Amino acid sequence: MVLDTRQLLLQRGIAMLLRHGYNDLGIAALLEETQIPKGSFYHHFESKEDFGLQVVDLYMKEVHGGLDQCLRDAKRSPLQRVRHFFEMSEEKYRTEGYLGCLLGGLGQELSGVSQAFRRKVEQCFNEIARRIAVCLREAIDQGALPKETDPDKMAELLVNCWEGAALRSRLRRDPAPLREMLDFYFRNVAA
Amino acid sequence: MVLDTRQLLLQRGIAMLLRHGYNDLGIAALLEETQIPKGSFYHHFESKEDFGLQVVDLYMKEVHGGLDQCLRDAKRSPLQRVRHFFEMSEEKYRTEGYLGCLLGGLGQELSGVSQAFRRKVEQCFNEIARRIAVCLREAIDQGALPKETDPDKMAELLVNCWEGAALRSRLRRDPAPLREMLDFYFRNVAA
Repeated sequence: MVLDTRQLLLQRGIAMLLRHGYNDLGIAALLEETQIPKGSFYHHFESKEDFGLQVVDLYMKEVHGGLDQCLRDAKRSPLQRVRHFFEMSEEKYRTEGYLGCLLGGLGQELSGVSQAFRRKVEQCFNEIARRIAVCLREAIDQGALPKETDPDKMAELLVNCWEGAALRSRLRRDPAPLREMLDFYFRNVAA
Repeated sequence: MVLDTRQLLLQRGIAMLLRHGYNDLGIAALLEETQIPKGSFYHHFESKEDFGLQVVDLYMKEVHGGLDQCLRDAKRSPLQRVRHFFEMSEEKYRTEGYLGCLLGGLGQELSGVSQAFRRKVEQCFNEIARRIAVCLREAIDQGALPKETDPDKMAELLVNCWEGAALRSRLRRDPAPLREMLDFYFRNVAA
């Protein structure tokens, strides 16, 4: 299937924003790489900011796809499903050369100055944590987590610690920080 | 005491880089804020990159000052000392409006494209983790942590999870993610 122009720009945008961040990404470089004329870019996107926000939407579509695949997997226990989602994320990071998570990158770079990105990225983390919390609640119901566990808090904590590990993984181009974080979390969340 | 020109630029640089990140920081804006002429900036710094790296050095001087103060505090147990360091960091974040950690911000923004910043930020996290590991080793010797604890790994984990919580705190302008992360870590590290 041939991607249409808009999709092609957004797909390439994910990879380029992951490496360069937002301010270092040149629209001219993006157009040269994709061989798409400038007028066409501004036909599809109002501005660079509009483009960046739509790249985040596409990234989140992929994240939700991964969550669908992992969290609905009836062959695994609820906790195994959650862990599997993060292991699949690690596998995705590997194919990209361990550049970490686009949400963490844009969140750090832009949330001091851009309300639009600050709100968008916070909303993305919220959505991910909410879906994980559903699975943790199931684990509580099945007795795999203590009854007094707060699934919302524990889901937020997991997402947040993962983002810190993803930063360190990006600095080192190494999956070890991601694995050690997951080991610690899952060893202790059930304790 | 009047700060000299170089110190004034670096101090102001910490605050401006924390909010704007590196690429969005205009040297012109920095000079206007500090009322320092352009020639003077380039007398003290070779380039914007040189300036940014020296800002990180000054930031780390403050971090090491905090570590000195907290980790050598004989009135607290080793684990309490470590926790106190992060609580003091949270207090510093509060005075800045919860903009998170400069190392995490620059590490995320720049490590995809700049070897200089990637190496510098990784080295900073390493130094912090090494100092915390010394304290964790003391906690193991005193029986406050299980003998099989790996102090280096557990120190890295703490630094990494903190950075994730600091990102979320930055997005929300809220200390809760920091506190919840510390509670989880210290509740479980000793388990």
